[in-house]
Amino acid sequence: MTSVSTVTPEIESLCSELACRARKAATILATVQSAAKDRWLCRVADTLLAQQDQLLAANQIDLDQAREAGLSGASFDRLRLTPERLRAAAVGLREVAALADPIGKIREGTIRPNGLEVYKVGVPLGVILFIYESRPNVTLDAAALCVKSGNAVILRGGKEALHSNLALHRLLADCLVAEQLPVDAVQLVPTVDRAAVGHLLQLSEYIDLVIPRGGEELIRRVAAEARMPVLKHYKGICHVFVERSAELERAERIVVNAKCQRPGVCNAAECLLVDAPIADTFLPRVAKRLLERGVEIRGCPRTCQLIPQARPATPEDYHTEFLDLILAVRVVDDLEAAIEHINQHGSQHTDSIVTNDLSAARRFTSAVDSSAVLVNASTRFNDGFELGLGAEIGISTDKFHARGPCGLLELTSYKYVIYGEGQVRGE
Amino acid sequence: MTSVSTVTPEIESLCSELACRARKAATILATVQSAAKDRWLCRVADTLLAQQDQLLAANQIDLDQAREAGLSGASFDRLRLTPERLRAAAVGLREVAALADPIGKIREGTIRPNGLEVYKVGVPLGVILFIYESRPNVTLDAAALCVKSGNAVILRGGKEALHSNLALHRLLADCLVAEQLPVDAVQLVPTVDRAAVGHLLQLSEYIDLVIPRGGEELIRRVAAEARMPVLKHYKGICHVFVERSAELERAERIVVNAKCQRPGVCNAAECLLVDAPIADTFLPRVAKRLLERGVEIRGCPRTCQLIPQARPATPEDYHTEFLDLILAVRVVDDLEAAIEHINQHGSQHTDSIVTNDLSAARRFTSAVDSSAVLVNASTRFNDGFELGLGAEIGISTDKFHARGPCGLLELTSYKYVIYGEGQVRGE
Repeated sequence: MTSVSTVTPEIESLCSELACRARKAATILATVQSAAKDRWLCRVADTLLAQQDQLLAANQIDLDQAREAGLSGASFDRLRLTPERLRAAAVGLREVAALADPIGKIREGTIRPNGLEVYKVGVPLGVILFIYESRPNVTLDAAALCVKSGNAVILRGGKEALHSNLALHRLLADCLVAEQLPVDAVQLVPTVDRAAVGHLLQLSEYIDLVIPRGGEELIRRVAAEARMPVLKHYKGICHVFVERSAELERAERIVVNAKCQRPGVCNAAECLLVDAPIADTFLPRVAKRLLERGVEIRGCPRTCQLIPQARPATPEDYHTEFLDLILAVRVVDDLEAAIEHINQHGSQHTDSIVTNDLSAARRFTSAVDSSAVLVNASTRFNDGFELGLGAEIGISTDKFHARGPCGLLELTSYKYVIYGEGQVRGE
Repeated sequence: MTSVSTVTPEIESLCSELACRARKAATILATVQSAAKDRWLCRVADTLLAQQDQLLAANQIDLDQAREAGLSGASFDRLRLTPERLRAAAVGLREVAALADPIGKIREGTIRPNGLEVYKVGVPLGVILFIYESRPNVTLDAAALCVKSGNAVILRGGKEALHSNLALHRLLADCLVAEQLPVDAVQLVPTVDRAAVGHLLQLSEYIDLVIPRGGEELIRRVAAEARMPVLKHYKGICHVFVERSAELERAERIVVNAKCQRPGVCNAAECLLVDAPIADTFLPRVAKRLLERGVEIRGCPRTCQLIPQARPATPEDYHTEFLDLILAVRVVDDLEAAIEHINQHGSQHTDSIVTNDLSAARRFTSAVDSSAVLVNASTRFNDGFELGLGAEIGISTDKFHARGPCGLLELTSYKYVIYGEGQVRGE
């Protein structure tokens, strides 16, 4: 985040006022009709394109400063806005507008024997504090998902993106005003001072949820300090287990996809488990394809016997989220050994079995305690879009409230609305 | 809880072992079939009656000690087991057995355009630490709900009930063994040392959820110390608003029921709001019936003019959960003033409007941000049994995870189970 970390009275009062205004805006936004929120999303999409030059100019200031500060590679690339990325963001905003509104949705309904009509109705959580990396396009995604789900949001992006975020926030706020929505529904923490976040994390009377994105260290720090619930997105140590009955061509394709299609993301596979009876035939052929793709293999002794290019895995390798073209490989005795390995070494994120044995599939999906358990499919499918939730704000590694991909529904709560005609409880 | 609070290495290791065993039991319990859990519930019900004499004898030790220690009134009564209460508990256990198992329940299912079958399936949370008052019957309720929902539970009852709880726990554990279920699925913290709870609250690697019941102070302390999520049950400052179009006879019946039917519980009304145009006619007649029932009325100036027996309300009275035959009363200008009062002074628990105006009903249910909002019915209906959830373990005042009555479903999470036939993501 940043360096300075003294809490001054000015920062305290700035943050408290901002959070208090967010709370008031949330109260109004909670009962706004879907159409108004969707009009806002479409207006933001239009304005993004109309104000492209100003936005790119603001982004250029961030890029220049980042280059001077020595930022490079993927981080520098993520900071960049381009006409193409703005067009993609506009498309994304229109897609969010097209999603069903979770607010007011009747999740369940029943008429009780005494005639009371009971409805369980979706409501917003309230105010969300969203802390994220230096990626200006995330500013748009987060604002879109929070407002569509009826929540006010306080955005806290990485300091490298400050000028881009200020320009984007101005645009988002102007569009709120134009659509007669509360302008404080989307706010940006206007200082890069780290103490601001520390103070906001104390304000549980105003803020209902914190969503931190970025490194594990940031998430742990936020979880330790926050006085309100935190939606946590820790690491994904995802496995593919190739069971003895698997179709090997299919298994190969799934392993290569899970590891290589996008190795830097949380639902990429980090560990391959191979059932002992097929290790001799399967490991050499999958290794060939993995090595062609530039994957470094770190194997158990049996794996190293079968794959000359493999280097021995350390115990730590089986607990590591590589986020890179590195794969830990282990031969296991049977299905139960695979399940035990995954439940012990994994991160309850995403695990896949390749098998043609129905009992094995059922046992694996039942016993592996992860947010997504797949049969004969790549781990890469544990994603909000791929599972049909629409856009996602992250993938929760918690079990409480929301697990796995978090879309609009996961940003909501519910209330019971009960209609009667004078019912009282028996005296 | 209790007085001693030094953390000794013995207590630390005792608690850590207990929690670690609970975690292992939870892993087994997660995939146990419904029938085995239901057989256990019915066996506990049978055994309760068969071992009635031993249970009552253990309870008598607690009662004797409590009397010596000066416990009396409602607290003493809640500590008592009787043959009748054991029979009622047995009936309750059989009712839990009859409820649908939330584990394995498919909450949603879809086939994606690429052929992936996606199921959102109910799974247990894992290990629940349940901290509660000196009420032995709650020991049975909590164990029943946790095991039925596939969770291991660590029970920490009030110290006055220790002997009763030890006897009940032995019974619960014996029945687990008899049904070949993991005996560590139900454990009792075997010391009344307060430091034990402090240490358990640190063990987030073993414990997934804490449910504290009892005073607000206890809940706040637990929430401040716990490193895992806490399902909080704070106070219920519940309102009845009688709108100008209300049928007055109906309004009277609802107000009296909400206040008097059981004044000591969280969903009893603590504040009556009356729409100004009907104050002159409604307040005197409802006051008559409330006064007949022994209710003390604390009113705004207008109320005190209309009801000679009323005493003036202090500002604090409108923020107070009386849990007694005391009612704060205020005349408000209109619907919006009532909504504002409730959202400002209430506790987002349970609020009711009495009205015949559809627009008023819709505006009230939409704008009042409480776990249950009722139209023309008593606040006393915000209860797991009454809303059709089955037995409840508490009423959550949080919005995160579970809101309002918490039954079996609220003690679960979910995972995505995904079946494919070799699908990979586009390269």
